[in-house]
Amino acid sequence: MIKIFTVLYCLFISIGLNAQTDEAILKNIYNTSLTNGKSYEWLNHLSNQIGSRLSGSLGAERAVAYTKEELEKLGLDKVWLQPVMVPRWVRGAKEYAYIETTPGKTNTINICALGGSVATPALGIKANIVEVKNFEELEALGKANIEGKIVFYNRPMQPDVMNTHDAYSEANNQRKKGAEEASKYGAVAVIVRSLNLRLDDLPHTGNMSYGDLPLEKRIPAAAISTNDAEVLSTMLQLDKNIKLYFKQNCKQLADVQSYNVIGEITGSQFPDEYMVVGGHLDSWDLGDGSHDDGAGVVQSMDVLRLLKEIGIKPKRSIRVVLFMNEENGKRGGIKYAEDAKTKKENHVFALESDSGGFTPRGFSFDCSDAQFNKITQWKPLFEPYMVHYFEKGGSGADIDYLKNNTNVLVGLFPDSQRYFDYHHAGNDTFDAINKRELELGAATMTALVYLFDKYGVK
Amino acid sequence: MIKIFTVLYCLFISIGLNAQTDEAILKNIYNTSLTNGKSYEWLNHLSNQIGSRLSGSLGAERAVAYTKEELEKLGLDKVWLQPVMVPRWVRGAKEYAYIETTPGKTNTINICALGGSVATPALGIKANIVEVKNFEELEALGKANIEGKIVFYNRPMQPDVMNTHDAYSEANNQRKKGAEEASKYGAVAVIVRSLNLRLDDLPHTGNMSYGDLPLEKRIPAAAISTNDAEVLSTMLQLDKNIKLYFKQNCKQLADVQSYNVIGEITGSQFPDEYMVVGGHLDSWDLGDGSHDDGAGVVQSMDVLRLLKEIGIKPKRSIRVVLFMNEENGKRGGIKYAEDAKTKKENHVFALESDSGGFTPRGFSFDCSDAQFNKITQWKPLFEPYMVHYFEKGGSGADIDYLKNNTNVLVGLFPDSQRYFDYHHAGNDTFDAINKRELELGAATMTALVYLFDKYGVK
Repeated sequence: MIKIFTVLYCLFISIGLNAQTDEAILKNIYNTSLTNGKSYEWLNHLSNQIGSRLSGSLGAERAVAYTKEELEKLGLDKVWLQPVMVPRWVRGAKEYAYIETTPGKTNTINICALGGSVATPALGIKANIVEVKNFEELEALGKANIEGKIVFYNRPMQPDVMNTHDAYSEANNQRKKGAEEASKYGAVAVIVRSLNLRLDDLPHTGNMSYGDLPLEKRIPAAAISTNDAEVLSTMLQLDKNIKLYFKQNCKQLADVQSYNVIGEITGSQFPDEYMVVGGHLDSWDLGDGSHDDGAGVVQSMDVLRLLKEIGIKPKRSIRVVLFMNEENGKRGGIKYAEDAKTKKENHVFALESDSGGFTPRGFSFDCSDAQFNKITQWKPLFEPYMVHYFEKGGSGADIDYLKNNTNVLVGLFPDSQRYFDYHHAGNDTFDAINKRELELGAATMTALVYLFDKYGVK
Repeated sequence: MIKIFTVLYCLFISIGLNAQTDEAILKNIYNTSLTNGKSYEWLNHLSNQIGSRLSGSLGAERAVAYTKEELEKLGLDKVWLQPVMVPRWVRGAKEYAYIETTPGKTNTINICALGGSVATPALGIKANIVEVKNFEELEALGKANIEGKIVFYNRPMQPDVMNTHDAYSEANNQRKKGAEEASKYGAVAVIVRSLNLRLDDLPHTGNMSYGDLPLEKRIPAAAISTNDAEVLSTMLQLDKNIKLYFKQNCKQLADVQSYNVIGEITGSQFPDEYMVVGGHLDSWDLGDGSHDDGAGVVQSMDVLRLLKEIGIKPKRSIRVVLFMNEENGKRGGIKYAEDAKTKKENHVFALESDSGGFTPRGFSFDCSDAQFNKITQWKPLFEPYMVHYFEKGGSGADIDYLKNNTNVLVGLFPDSQRYFDYHHAGNDTFDAINKRELELGAATMTALVYLFDKYGVK
């Protein structure tokens, strides 16, 4: 008897949903997320009970266990862990740095080691400083002016760029390749202006690489807060002979076992067509990674929960993938794509949220023009929610490895103005999250997944 | 000689600007605001050096002097004060409230007097509580169930509304008319759930009115934080006989002299056509009014500064008007419109920023359909700045008095998701302001003023 009622009930739900317009279903998605979303509660736990989740850390391990457990509660068709070996870099004791104007007269500044950097010698490094804005200035100065010194990269993010991610892209070669380049001219260390559009006291970490430099050529690299970068620059203009001292204690340890966390609703009509929605589970270690990318993790989880909650039974298989190690290795994204290739899984769509939990403004689509034109026809459905921005562009660092000639990759595009105030810094914490903004993002992702699943876009 | 150069230079600037496309001028406006804006610096002073600016307070007086002085530095054609008498309501000593479950067992809660409320008796009020969601429930309960009790209005703002201002409008009759209505049934006081979409511990003040109630019928009205509203409601479900005690010390004093602050760039071709850009200088007393409406004040000032900075010489007269007393009387707005009428000034356009200093999303236009259609043609110019929202609707509380059949009134529409987290509460402070978001708002206002001045819209 119960079974008959269940069947009838499902039939009713199903007929009910088919009869509803897309407008009504999107309204249902947004209303449900705003009144009965789980994103904020999940993020509270992830941020405040678990905290930072750098690859290989206890936090990352606990985040894997927690999100798997929460996905299992949702009654998905499958939930599993995908093993992936990840690098393990540890910061060690807090960094310490000062500017020395005359011997004994020092001025403490705020720095942090860049991810992947080597430590300084145990007693630290003290040297004169040479300030540059870019690699061209470095080359022009040459070995004669750089050898034995600390190179100070001080090119600010451009303020007059609307999409702050573009300003980030323009400035981040200083952080990513600054040490490698400066080492070639005999620098003993590099200090990089934090990639932050705001003037404040927080150093922002982030990944860096030594490229092919041999071990003995690898020099310590640290970020300096924007306020201190301004101070240091001014002091250097007053006196070129001042020195900078810093000490950092970071270390690259052996790779450790970790996991991507995956959950799936198997498709009712096209179970072999996969749609992925995801974010990355790892974070940097200074804050608790609420915006980067706790937000993307919980929003992605909520996409599958909202579909179930509303009674949408997808035709295609929808997977939530919580990628490990986006920040310093991308091993999770690479592993997921490799496995998909090995198993010949047809991934027709992937959507990543990795730009913070702010008010959603739209999406960035990596697909063909024909596909983009079809998708753009859905834009009016998003207008009541003020999600107007549909542009061609990049998608997400983890899903990028799934790219082929036929699929559609998408990045959620939230308002970007505040993102770099928090990005990779100690203030990327739960209090910087607005519940409604987070929930609107989850709803926006769910709406796109619903439409793509319903109509398909070849 | 200097004069000739000046003339040639002005000619050059003028030719230069005419030769530039609107796209280029808008780009110049946004870039200048983001790299060389004054809004943030002005707001820092207004918020952190002056602080709250309730009508009739010392803060309001100092804000008048400061903004006048700053406008005078800009080299406008005229700067003046427009006298206006304003009401003076003072909070007095901080409020105190608790829930009493059994005699002697109390639970302190966070409340604040609503603006315009009378005080409690010196020893406070203690009474049983009756919870309602709206005036219909009040009526259904009737005098028998209400007399001698404290009415607790507890209808939350609706979370599933995209524009949070709509949710505010739906809920705010509890605050505005709650005391007047409850008094009719013999209530001894009212406690109103704060108009806040978030659950937190901050009570949100705001104006209320007793309508035509005689003095002896005026009962004290206070706001309770959303967290405490939830607690109180739960406790009432457990035990209808609990009591609420509160004490507040507010007082309505005699009206005092205050001012609107006005600056003008006189139009080169149509000096008798006035365009107003403004915000309100007064604020509530709990925070420092950074979002409400310090942001609107400094953005409006920056519109005139940016026009001058970029070398735009308007055809029409552009006035910045910093209105006094929007929060509890609207006397500044009324006075400005009365004077304009007396002097037969033709106000063709007015733009108010009074919805916080968040990322601008567009404008709300109060004008004819024909005018709206013309203005909508400018929308593509705003698209690079993601200011897509052009809708017909209300404008601003102060400029609304200028409404006639031919002019265009406009409200800046910033992202609204976070606004009511701060609105009229103790956390409406400078640290909740993002510099870029504030500057984007100023640029967006400047761009619309530039286009309207250039093309006119009859």
